[in-house]
Amino acid sequence: MAAPLKIAIAGLGTVGAGVLKLLTEHADLIAERCGHRIVVGAVSARDRKRDRGVDIQGVRWYQDAAALAADPEADVIVELIGGADGVARQVCEAALNAGKHVVTANKALLAHHGATLARLAESKGATLAFEASVAGGIPIVKALREGLAANRLSRVYGILNGTCNYILTTMRESRREFAEVLAEAQKLGYAEADPSFDVDGVDAAHKLAILTSLAFGTAVDLAGVHVEGIRHVSSLDIDYADELGYRIKLLGIARRTEHGIEQRVHPCMVPKGTPIAHVEGVYNAVVAEGDYVGRVVHEGRGAGAGPTASAVVADLIDIARSGSRTRLPTFAVPAAQLAPAQSSPMDRHVGAYYVRLMVLDRPGVIADVAAALRDEQVSMESMLQHGRAPGEVVPVVLTSHDTGEAGMRRALAKIAKLEAMIEPPRMIRIEPL
Amino acid sequence: MAAPLKIAIAGLGTVGAGVLKLLTEHADLIAERCGHRIVVGAVSARDRKRDRGVDIQGVRWYQDAAALAADPEADVIVELIGGADGVARQVCEAALNAGKHVVTANKALLAHHGATLARLAESKGATLAFEASVAGGIPIVKALREGLAANRLSRVYGILNGTCNYILTTMRESRREFAEVLAEAQKLGYAEADPSFDVDGVDAAHKLAILTSLAFGTAVDLAGVHVEGIRHVSSLDIDYADELGYRIKLLGIARRTEHGIEQRVHPCMVPKGTPIAHVEGVYNAVVAEGDYVGRVVHEGRGAGAGPTASAVVADLIDIARSGSRTRLPTFAVPAAQLAPAQSSPMDRHVGAYYVRLMVLDRPGVIADVAAALRDEQVSMESMLQHGRAPGEVVPVVLTSHDTGEAGMRRALAKIAKLEAMIEPPRMIRIEPL
Repeated sequence: MAAPLKIAIAGLGTVGAGVLKLLTEHADLIAERCGHRIVVGAVSARDRKRDRGVDIQGVRWYQDAAALAADPEADVIVELIGGADGVARQVCEAALNAGKHVVTANKALLAHHGATLARLAESKGATLAFEASVAGGIPIVKALREGLAANRLSRVYGILNGTCNYILTTMRESRREFAEVLAEAQKLGYAEADPSFDVDGVDAAHKLAILTSLAFGTAVDLAGVHVEGIRHVSSLDIDYADELGYRIKLLGIARRTEHGIEQRVHPCMVPKGTPIAHVEGVYNAVVAEGDYVGRVVHEGRGAGAGPTASAVVADLIDIARSGSRTRLPTFAVPAAQLAPAQSSPMDRHVGAYYVRLMVLDRPGVIADVAAALRDEQVSMESMLQHGRAPGEVVPVVLTSHDTGEAGMRRALAKIAKLEAMIEPPRMIRIEPL
Repeated sequence: MAAPLKIAIAGLGTVGAGVLKLLTEHADLIAERCGHRIVVGAVSARDRKRDRGVDIQGVRWYQDAAALAADPEADVIVELIGGADGVARQVCEAALNAGKHVVTANKALLAHHGATLARLAESKGATLAFEASVAGGIPIVKALREGLAANRLSRVYGILNGTCNYILTTMRESRREFAEVLAEAQKLGYAEADPSFDVDGVDAAHKLAILTSLAFGTAVDLAGVHVEGIRHVSSLDIDYADELGYRIKLLGIARRTEHGIEQRVHPCMVPKGTPIAHVEGVYNAVVAEGDYVGRVVHEGRGAGAGPTASAVVADLIDIARSGSRTRLPTFAVPAAQLAPAQSSPMDRHVGAYYVRLMVLDRPGVIADVAAALRDEQVSMESMLQHGRAPGEVVPVVLTSHDTGEAGMRRALAKIAKLEAMIEPPRMIRIEPL
């Protein structure tokens, strides 16, 4: 058997400890599969004494992750610190500059600096691998870069944030409101104390920006992602979605359009008959549509120590198997050839819309709403007002045929000003899948 | 850009023509992605003059596929002839012996000779790639060999035959019987004139044997697969399945047990809430369960020129990217280290069962059936007999708790001999997913 692959791990939180555990538990299996042992030579973390359930005696300890990146023995640096800048970025840049391979689970880093880091890696003949950064244990980075590489893809989309999917699933199943379910998710550890990164769609946007680059061969373009979160989804919307034949999911969608690549993260109504509608709880799913392959769906656990460790170690096995030689582009094409991002602005989006209005039930309201939509050339597909309650507040729900985002937004701005409106109109896009 | 990768294609049927079309249409995209052009230098097929919708002027023509395998210019031979032996096998062996890489879509060849061919390939430093042999365009070979390689897998299963899934889906949706739906599928081109390869489970068994080797690191062992097809599934069973909360699917299942690897292909009742229950029509799906990653589901088109060409060309892109160097084991581990197949015989299978009896409705029948089950220690979970029709034939449906296959078969043999039985008992295994 060839010489072992020596790695150093920066960051021993939940994921880092998971990676150590996996490498220990499956040391023989991994050696058999890749013809080398993978040996952890050095680690760094904030607290040396914390019990991580894994023996790290005999492993070189660095207090300073940047120093670890320069460890002369390490062939690969595994960066599990997180964050778009700061130490994580320093560690990765230092390692790549030294010609070492980098394996990371850091989606923020890749979303902000993916193209730059890829150029650095490839110029040094080093591998920058990041399977764990998107959709946890699902090997979607590999699928897009390799398995589906013969296709021109038209669209990639998915459920990219398990916290949001858990909240939306639980809201539907238990018929409770967002705030209450979020509080419960925080107690259960499915949501952070500060949940905004997840529930406002930022995390999903990071992952989508990475998928877009892999799918379309464009430089990672986080700024081009239109982002909306799930705070405004109410259990009323979930009930109406059900009635209309939909489920509400937070999707990240990247699509080739005549104006460039459209990237957007927002709540969507998806038809109940589609695979994505059945992906519930903390599961993630990514769907790719290619001209030869058709639709391919990948579903699995999107987070957690186990799935993330599975992805990190898969990257290590790839490196161990390929030897010192970089064989693959970091994204879809060699970094020097990544096309400049050409994002299609959200104003140019065309699609169908669901709109919920909370109105005082009195004569003429619907006529005013209909006039506002007509003035912006928005064509209504359906209108639902269940029950009558003269003088009281009732929900009125509309769905549109395909229409332009800009016109819809102008119509909603007008509708918001109508005297009978007692809440801002709520809009959810209907996604044909 | 580096020198082109030169390939020769043996077999220009539907798939071969699809591969030619893809390589022509996406020549630039592929060159960008892998840093080389992929050039078709030679082809062979039975009929030179047939219009394949692709220009093959200027490509060297071989009447004899075996001669094509020796083409001195070709780096890779793409074998799309099919069949476990004969010309297909000759071509692959000749190419590998000459140190050329082989890409094939031939599941029969791999299922019968996979381990031998892998050893030959690896001894010559050549790649033997077969992504297209299982589940069409779904990159499941790559997922098992690479993406999930950090896991110890406990089970791999899936819907591996689109013809059977189309027939079962259509039977359920249109409430028609097998023979009628099969005839329609033959007219539509979804089933062959001689359908036995598909509907008797042989095709799924070939694919399962390949998946098993990839998942568990054992030599391909087609003989170890227990195979049953779907001819005996009736629309009555489909209705009862629905009532009991199941869908009927033909699954291929490979599972680690204490007695070895259990491999089986047969109709299954799968709970309606599981992802696999929603995979309909000609779609395939493969589910892998790993100790770190949990459950990962892959779904997509399992056959057809487009998806198959997508998989064949993905293998070619892998080879073009890796240069002349073999970097990966053919299956899960290097061929020399594949463990001997250790199959767990079907008699040792333990699971739950659905049994449908067609009986003359008269006193004492159920008691006789219950006694036969009791005598073999089969514990009943439920019994359904809808309506009464004294003296007439009625269906009686039973489900069991987990029980051994051998005992269940003995009980069914006894039940078959009861005077009131007017048809052989029908049994479908219930699969916990």
